[in-house]
Amino acid sequence: MLSLRHAIRPVASRCARRWAHNIPSFSHLNAVTEEDLAQFSKILAPTSILSTLPPNSTSPDDLASYNEDWMGKYHGQANTVLRPRTTQQVSEIVKWCAKRRIGIVPQGGNTGLVGGGISLQKEIVLSLGAMSKVRSFDPVSVLYRRVKYGYPTPGILVADAGCILESLSEYIAPHNHIMPLDLGAKGSCQIGGNISTNAGGLRLLRYGSLHGTVLGLEVVLPDGTILDQLSTLRKDNTGYDLKQLFIGGEGTLGVVTGVSILTPPAPQASNNIFLALPHFDNVLPLYQTVKRQLGEIMSAFEYIDRTAYDMGLSHGLGPVLNADEVGNSQCFVLVETSGGNQTHDEEKLTGLLESLLSADKPLINTGVLSQSPSQFASLWAFREGLTECCQKEGKPYKYDVSVPLADFQKVVDAIRERMISKGLYGDHAISKVMGYGHVGDGNLHMNVIAKHGYRPELEEALEPFIYELVASHKGSVSAEHGIGSMKTHALHYSKSDVSIELMRKIKQVIDPLNIMNPGKVLP
Amino acid sequence: MLSLRHAIRPVASRCARRWAHNIPSFSHLNAVTEEDLAQFSKILAPTSILSTLPPNSTSPDDLASYNEDWMGKYHGQANTVLRPRTTQQVSEIVKWCAKRRIGIVPQGGNTGLVGGGISLQKEIVLSLGAMSKVRSFDPVSVLYRRVKYGYPTPGILVADAGCILESLSEYIAPHNHIMPLDLGAKGSCQIGGNISTNAGGLRLLRYGSLHGTVLGLEVVLPDGTILDQLSTLRKDNTGYDLKQLFIGGEGTLGVVTGVSILTPPAPQASNNIFLALPHFDNVLPLYQTVKRQLGEIMSAFEYIDRTAYDMGLSHGLGPVLNADEVGNSQCFVLVETSGGNQTHDEEKLTGLLESLLSADKPLINTGVLSQSPSQFASLWAFREGLTECCQKEGKPYKYDVSVPLADFQKVVDAIRERMISKGLYGDHAISKVMGYGHVGDGNLHMNVIAKHGYRPELEEALEPFIYELVASHKGSVSAEHGIGSMKTHALHYSKSDVSIELMRKIKQVIDPLNIMNPGKVLP
Repeated sequence: MLSLRHAIRPVASRCARRWAHNIPSFSHLNAVTEEDLAQFSKILAPTSILSTLPPNSTSPDDLASYNEDWMGKYHGQANTVLRPRTTQQVSEIVKWCAKRRIGIVPQGGNTGLVGGGISLQKEIVLSLGAMSKVRSFDPVSVLYRRVKYGYPTPGILVADAGCILESLSEYIAPHNHIMPLDLGAKGSCQIGGNISTNAGGLRLLRYGSLHGTVLGLEVVLPDGTILDQLSTLRKDNTGYDLKQLFIGGEGTLGVVTGVSILTPPAPQASNNIFLALPHFDNVLPLYQTVKRQLGEIMSAFEYIDRTAYDMGLSHGLGPVLNADEVGNSQCFVLVETSGGNQTHDEEKLTGLLESLLSADKPLINTGVLSQSPSQFASLWAFREGLTECCQKEGKPYKYDVSVPLADFQKVVDAIRERMISKGLYGDHAISKVMGYGHVGDGNLHMNVIAKHGYRPELEEALEPFIYELVASHKGSVSAEHGIGSMKTHALHYSKSDVSIELMRKIKQVIDPLNIMNPGKVLP
Repeated sequence: MLSLRHAIRPVASRCARRWAHNIPSFSHLNAVTEEDLAQFSKILAPTSILSTLPPNSTSPDDLASYNEDWMGKYHGQANTVLRPRTTQQVSEIVKWCAKRRIGIVPQGGNTGLVGGGISLQKEIVLSLGAMSKVRSFDPVSVLYRRVKYGYPTPGILVADAGCILESLSEYIAPHNHIMPLDLGAKGSCQIGGNISTNAGGLRLLRYGSLHGTVLGLEVVLPDGTILDQLSTLRKDNTGYDLKQLFIGGEGTLGVVTGVSILTPPAPQASNNIFLALPHFDNVLPLYQTVKRQLGEIMSAFEYIDRTAYDMGLSHGLGPVLNADEVGNSQCFVLVETSGGNQTHDEEKLTGLLESLLSADKPLINTGVLSQSPSQFASLWAFREGLTECCQKEGKPYKYDVSVPLADFQKVVDAIRERMISKGLYGDHAISKVMGYGHVGDGNLHMNVIAKHGYRPELEEALEPFIYELVASHKGSVSAEHGIGSMKTHALHYSKSDVSIELMRKIKQVIDPLNIMNPGKVLP
């Protein structure tokens, strides 16, 4: 077996050290053998088994897309990938692996950012991608004729875990429903992976988290038993809500194979505004004002600090606002509305802008209201384009944290000051420290740009400083990306020893053999 | 010790049998002794200990309100009630009880409907009512001056578990926020009890379940350890979401002592309409139409069948609609809106009514839109008055179930037919079978009226028939009331053996001594 250190590509040197330090030995697990392949071939069709072992002898290149995550940051070690088509097949695979003590890494679209879907040593990858059928949905169009056959509650989608998020969105779009979550990775990520990682994304402010919108799950437990809680009921108060453990369980407690989820009706009108604020201190009062005036139609409230805004401009984003009117604005906010009536929504937005601009002590310097779908898209493009701009600026250290709204800028400033005090701020080291993100959710994406590439002394200046800083603000070191294998060592910054010990007990009782995604989540 | 059979009041004879049949012996638990009281008096002030044992020798009458639930249906056996004021005190009590193997029944406002907060044998009652402080809230009015001190996200309330729901509503009302849940029992029930029982109520359709709105909990675990997950963050993806186990855990996994909850801004406009529908088959298409046209402002969609409507009229409710226009309508729907703009909301409602009435094949026979706060209240009064009418009709067997919307009336009709086939339908036995409830949530409240009182043969005809019926529709035998001690024997109708076994493992690993609310939830 290759040592992990060698398996990590050079670009990810900071991760290599971290990984090498953290990975348990997995001495309790066995590698896949030819005997196991023979067993798997009794369960699966030949095309559903990829293995570099004989007799399959698949080329390692054909396993690359399962071993390498989409950032190319982590490189996994699996020599065998299984692609079951049914829950029963998953169950049989897991039963065999439990008997043989073979580690299993459940994998969705492999779009995670924390190495949670990667085989750390010799575990097989269990790819859910071939389980991609919609099991049921109650389309409005056929509701009238089907009602007498006892159709379930309108808007509830039941699907295989391997369905791609965007495919599900497209499936229900003709019926005027939308998925309650939306992510940049929607074209690749799978609903089972979304649920296993408790994905957040752009619609959380409006439709809430998956802990509320997921109605039921089907899960293959680590002993191969199928836990069928695929309820289509909005209310069911019969015992512990076990499905919640698997939402954000990152595949360490079982394999999510099926999902029942509440899909909201599509909004009939969408609008957005882009605002420049004199001071950071205006953000919270503005958030309050907007929330009060727009109420139920506010669907996003995104924050961009001045550093990020100027970076965007320098890379050709926008401009969305008049430079003179922007003046010395310290930060910017993008507000989106999603409502049921275009006229009503526009009236509300216009009223909001008027009251903001006419206030005695205005909370904004200037603002713009989109007047067409293309303007709507271009305001969003500024916000969404920032990630790419960061890549162009250098190598970004990315931190996905939750802190109280009022502390957003304080946290960003503290990091910049830290780098200054260490003599590491400037074009020779860290050229920019900036923050943007989902203010409405308290979720700040910090980007710390290493102009000439990642360097150990930069990382040492940043960590654990940033984790300690976030912890001092009672924040979360992972707002939406999860823990995976990357942040197991940082879990204690956001969770107490009592919490971690209880997590460990839950893991132990559900997966006593520790075969399910070993080395992830728990330190 | 009194036998349980004797302890149950005559009126609750059907429960007595059930209880006597179900209660485990609790031979693993010890009764409270004078030595224990001496220890408790080191932890608590004298006024916080009520015990019929010497030296306290409190009158049993003073324990009555803790031993008898608010329906007067269950009569508990506790000789000792402890009323801690701090989490630390709860922790010390639980530690002592764990050491001494004394059972603990956590109790909130004692407003449950399934005997979940009642001491079955010799367990102490741990009443949370003296822990009733708001710990933090970020009032809009002081936001401007406090923002620089790092205030948490606006709208997040952190409170002791013993705070009464209505008191919390009143606390945040001046700041234009509302609690995300509302119940009939709001004047007595406590937020910790709401969370422990995963209370549903009238606002679930709009604001979602507590699994989504509760951001964090503080829980004293069965060994006395304090689990502090009192997060005020909307997003935190660091490990398993343990708090979810305690939401709906009914006090069997620990004592909820503190709560962090997201409170929505108060709606600035509320309206409602009351509609008469020709056929039950119109309900689902109507629900779709209303949801599409009202979108985000629809906050309740309540169903009333014809039997319930006529019963309401006969007891002096309403009339809310013109009898001629109602004609042969089979059922009725009350729709409520809560929005940010009165003019906009009225326009949407008027538009809805016009389109409903002008349709080629109308989904409604007639309808009324409230024009004033008093009309608004009187439409709600009809729906809310039905419970009391049922009591006037006789002795109601009440079933709180979830079934797919399309099956609501089918389930009610099947029960009526069952009673007819058994010769038990009519004024001599079951005089009425009716359904009403939260259609929007799939939650049907069935009332089966025993005109001359509860009788064993009536119950035998109803159960397990109803539970089997609900299970055949993939429904839940307890949509919002929970399991408590009343429905442990019925849990298997809604949960598979695999689910129940996993619940049992979770219970075993968190409460290995089985001291925490023993005999509840799990059969």
